[in-house]
Amino acid sequence: MTADVLVVGTGLIGASIALALRDLRDVALADASPAHLSAAVERGCGRPWDGQERARLVVVAVPPSATAEVIQEHVRLIPDATFTHVSSVQAHVERQLESGRGNLRYCGGHPLAGREVSGPQAAAADLFDGRPWIVCPAPFTQEAARKAVFQLARDCGADPVTLAAQEHDAAMALVSHLPQVAASAVAARLLANGGAAAAALSGPGLRDTTRIAASDPRLWLDVLSSNAALLAPLVRDLADDLQQLAAALDDITAQSSRPGDVAARDGADRGAAAAGGQAQLLGPAYEVVADLLRRGNRGRSLVPVKRGEHDQDFVAVAVSVPDRPGELARLLLTAADSGVNVEDVRVEHLRGRPRGVIELDVAAGSAAQAATALTRAGWDVLQR
Amino acid sequence: MTADVLVVGTGLIGASIALALRDLRDVALADASPAHLSAAVERGCGRPWDGQERARLVVVAVPPSATAEVIQEHVRLIPDATFTHVSSVQAHVERQLESGRGNLRYCGGHPLAGREVSGPQAAAADLFDGRPWIVCPAPFTQEAARKAVFQLARDCGADPVTLAAQEHDAAMALVSHLPQVAASAVAARLLANGGAAAAALSGPGLRDTTRIAASDPRLWLDVLSSNAALLAPLVRDLADDLQQLAAALDDITAQSSRPGDVAARDGADRGAAAAGGQAQLLGPAYEVVADLLRRGNRGRSLVPVKRGEHDQDFVAVAVSVPDRPGELARLLLTAADSGVNVEDVRVEHLRGRPRGVIELDVAAGSAAQAATALTRAGWDVLQR
Repeated sequence: MTADVLVVGTGLIGASIALALRDLRDVALADASPAHLSAAVERGCGRPWDGQERARLVVVAVPPSATAEVIQEHVRLIPDATFTHVSSVQAHVERQLESGRGNLRYCGGHPLAGREVSGPQAAAADLFDGRPWIVCPAPFTQEAARKAVFQLARDCGADPVTLAAQEHDAAMALVSHLPQVAASAVAARLLANGGAAAAALSGPGLRDTTRIAASDPRLWLDVLSSNAALLAPLVRDLADDLQQLAAALDDITAQSSRPGDVAARDGADRGAAAAGGQAQLLGPAYEVVADLLRRGNRGRSLVPVKRGEHDQDFVAVAVSVPDRPGELARLLLTAADSGVNVEDVRVEHLRGRPRGVIELDVAAGSAAQAATALTRAGWDVLQR
Repeated sequence: MTADVLVVGTGLIGASIALALRDLRDVALADASPAHLSAAVERGCGRPWDGQERARLVVVAVPPSATAEVIQEHVRLIPDATFTHVSSVQAHVERQLESGRGNLRYCGGHPLAGREVSGPQAAAADLFDGRPWIVCPAPFTQEAARKAVFQLARDCGADPVTLAAQEHDAAMALVSHLPQVAASAVAARLLANGGAAAAALSGPGLRDTTRIAASDPRLWLDVLSSNAALLAPLVRDLADDLQQLAAALDDITAQSSRPGDVAARDGADRGAAAAGGQAQLLGPAYEVVADLLRRGNRGRSLVPVKRGEHDQDFVAVAVSVPDRPGELARLLLTAADSGVNVEDVRVEHLRGRPRGVIELDVAAGSAAQAATALTRAGWDVLQR
């Protein structure tokens, strides 16, 4: 007997692939952990692999650093299978496989899905629905192997997108690994400065900026170290920007600690110049600070909020509501009844009060309509 | 005639204070911009100040760098008034006022409210409801002045909290100014590396981490430069952590570019050691990376998600829904009908598909109940 697909590694991603495929293909499962394997079998992901049976496609779903090794082990057992994997870093796998590749049938892949949770218990058949699945053909990838991975992605409900391994890793360094590093580093500053009391005075800015600092350090050590070569220069450039900013702030401190009336004059100049957006009038130190903020504005405008749309296309309508079950639902129902499509929702609870502020992101063109409709329905829309 | 309160500067904060007070006190308004002033008067914030009338309390609501200067100008006109302000940086104001203070009646203040939007049009009477209002008495502050600012905060619906100016500025540097700098710097990297294509492959991590990078550069130049002395060392420590990380990533790259089979062996070692959380077995470079991630975990756990509660008290229940008006409302209504209190909501739209994933944060103890109730009501709860 030959399995259609052998999934090696039944964590969140492997088990979800198996679940997504189970009505289409005959799926066998392997895992170094007997507990994981039996949990995945119980969850209905497939049948256990006997260690000898052949398979048409082998999907290796283990941590990035172990991926190439696990592929090589299985090539020795079932050399005529096609091999793919789901590693969030690709080039190092390709590099490790290249030397001893022989007749290896191989094409890399990386489904852009997954959460902070892990394990087969957390698996979901629709985890990949509508998500990009990056397909990374190596220079030695055969056309048949590439097609098999495209088919796998489609069968899992994902949208396959082709990228070379190096391009994939560069993109992930920029949009996934660097933000992780920055979030961890900001949260680490909070810890180092005994920030529990200060954190009590924080708002949504700190909360959003550090959210992913809660991610699993073991998984992320593996990811960051697997993409070390491409991530290092980005981290260094980030650090350089911050070093220059610190030096500029020191210069500003030195300038403003001149005697009383000069400092006051300087303050007024700063207010006027800042109001006119003319940091360069204040000298190079201020221009360094302003430049970073402006580059940040422009960089942020590149981040899609929804399917290629960006922040500026949406406007937040803020409503003050009692903090009790059902209010959020009632609010959104009013919006829906008024034909307003709510693109995103943010809830801000007020410290020590039984109320909260809810922000509804709506298309810029329908903000006025939304505010009017909500006010008419008796909601306390904040006039911002 | 003597006004109860003179508000100088009718931007978002000044105009909102005036609105919050208008049923309690007689409020006069001043603004260097005639357009701002007449917009605030039209909005019903108060009557225009004639430039001579006395006032019991003067609230200066101008950018941080101009605050002391504007206070000094008004002390010359109405020396027996009590002066406060709303600057997000405090110590430099105190310092500038100290030398020529004479019989100045003064106490600093900072309401923790405000948004990216600005101007009197955006003002709201309930902007401060239930928010902390930090009251910063100077060494030369009289008890009567401190009490007047407490009363102002309470009349605006806020909760007054006393902190020395230096403590206030240190806390804001950590929980507000440093996250702003980090968000701008990460977004700037995206820009510098031509990240539009990469950003199309990004997820909620990048989106949250860079959200506040969209803030107004003019306002933030003023804030960051006013708190330069306390912010600089935090930015430098952040940069140092990142420089060390970059160096560690370089070491890891050097180690893993040894010849083929050694590199593969190294990969497997890494996988095993990472799985066991034993970065130190891999050597000091890996330990640097793991250490930053672990410190990030601990720092993040200090960030309150709601009134002193933290991330770990809440669990996300994920539901797949069609992306059309009203679905979010229907979902939350089901949750409310089941007695589940939804603490927060995140909406993730799927690229190119008419569906989205909605995550509802609920108390850890009621997650199972919520999932069961939603599933029974026909919702597609993702098993994570």
